Amino acid sequence: MSLNELMEYGMNVHPNFEISYLVFRDLRQRGYVVKIPENEESLDVYPRGGAPHSHTPAYTVKAISERSPFSISVISGWIGGMDDKKLILGIADEEGDLTYYAAKFFRMRGKVEEPEFYEGRITVMGDRSMVWDVELAKKLQDNFVGRTFGDDTVQLSLMETAYLSEKGAEVFRGSKKMSPKSTIRYARKIQPDIERRLCAYRDLRKAGLIPKTGFKFGSHFRVYREQIGEGHAQYLVHVIPENYMSTWTEISRAVRLANSVRKQMIFAVVGSGIEYIRLKRLTP
Amino acid sequence: MSLNELMEYGMNVHPNFEISYLVFRDLRQRGYVVKIPENEESLDVYPRGGAPHSHTPAYTVKAISERSPFSISVISGWIGGMDDKKLILGIADEEGDLTYYAAKFFRMRGKVEEPEFYEGRITVMGDRSMVWDVELAKKLQDNFVGRTFGDDTVQLSLMETAYLSEKGAEVFRGSKKMSPKSTIRYARKIQPDIERRLCAYRDLRKAGLIPKTGFKFGSHFRVYREQIGEGHAQYLVHVIPENYMSTWTEISRAVRLANSVRKQMIFAVVGSGIEYIRLKRLTP
Repeated sequence: MSLNELMEYGMNVHPNFEISYLVFRDLRQRGYVVKIPENEESLDVYPRGGAPHSHTPAYTVKAISERSPFSISVISGWIGGMDDKKLILGIADEEGDLTYYAAKFFRMRGKVEEPEFYEGRITVMGDRSMVWDVELAKKLQDNFVGRTFGDDTVQLSLMETAYLSEKGAEVFRGSKKMSPKSTIRYARKIQPDIERRLCAYRDLRKAGLIPKTGFKFGSHFRVYREQIGEGHAQYLVHVIPENYMSTWTEISRAVRLANSVRKQMIFAVVGSGIEYIRLKRLTP
Repeated sequence: MSLNELMEYGMNVHPNFEISYLVFRDLRQRGYVVKIPENEESLDVYPRGGAPHSHTPAYTVKAISERSPFSISVISGWIGGMDDKKLILGIADEEGDLTYYAAKFFRMRGKVEEPEFYEGRITVMGDRSMVWDVELAKKLQDNFVGRTFGDDTVQLSLMETAYLSEKGAEVFRGSKKMSPKSTIRYARKIQPDIERRLCAYRDLRKAGLIPKTGFKFGSHFRVYREQIGEGHAQYLVHVIPENYMSTWTEISRAVRLANSVRKQMIFAVVGSGIEYIRLKRLTP
């Protein structure tokens, strides 16, 4: 049987054959021992120098085509089923070149305490808000909420406005005072995903982290672990729903960009709770 | 009237007031003369040192909120209406920070000649193809089509397969020969946007450029102007339909990533023809 014939045969037996083969071949060439467990779609990979009789596999590698959809729930399920092994995703692009990502649940923890309560007046203006209230503005500056706009004035996003409204600040639109609920209702019209983002913002703040807009990096948040000024933002956090689907091309772009600015790419998956998943590019 | 009152008044008169104000303020602070033409949504910006009575404006700046949708047809329309001025897009993020992009139609031109005709056999395998035909493989290697896979074997994407089929190569699936049309029909099932990508690939090849997959950069193609090996890929090309809508966050990510790998970000807009639009980040 020639390689030609063997590959045609393999393709008939196993629909993902050529992708699995590409990954298998690449890992072997890099010096890893690779085993294909029976009835499994993934490859067991042993640490360099380890072998099936003396070691347990360190990694489970999924061989994935660039063409297949990216589904966060599938990946979350894979990570959940990992036991002690680490999950690696090997993506074969059109040319058969491989990109590897380590995928894991990630615990977000920082050191920044956040006040329980805010007092003072916020004025909603279109798709953002202004704080002319000098005392509140000062407190917000001290706690890295919003953006200084002139000396004693702070500008807020609608999400920050909704957050502060929950924490006691008074939100006005013209002369009308809005409750936390009506603030959300107003904001939702302008930013339909505001509740999901707010959910992540609240959770990150509670964990001692400072989220600020990640717009310049194409993500929802850049996140600081320490007071801003004492270090750069260590994470980019993109907030997505449980049923989020995308393409591997988009994901590749996100992780690559995070890498290029030395940040870690985290997906905050918001459902009944929040789950953080880190995707990290590996060069095996 | 306090600034507070003035801004509330402005917001009532002009729905985009606070975004326009942010951009106006930022450009003034950077030393530009800015004029707001009557009945216009955009700002006229004069070159540094130039002024309305002695100069014509060099730029038209559109003030855009991060929240507003990205529509390629709107941007194409703006560029088309520019006369001699350059179009700048000023995007205000949640914190009121500004990112500027220059947007223009772009002429794609390279130096690489491409054979009119290919001869030989290609075997489709799942979502890619193999060329075991040594002579064809050699010609493909010389012309930077596909990827070498073992010494005399070349692996092709389905799009390259369809392209070569149009140019005379014989495509087989098992023992069945497929016409160029049935090759496309088969490929479309696996990659629904294949015709759009093929359209851009054909056009770029005709223009003397070499497109290869841009997967690692999160774009459809990375594109070389010279023979591969004589320089790095200068462009990232993302192929989109005329009615393409996205978010500014996604666009920001794409352009930022292109910048970080020193490539230019080009959108290939495929409709009845192809239009190339370059977005370039500016620091004014």
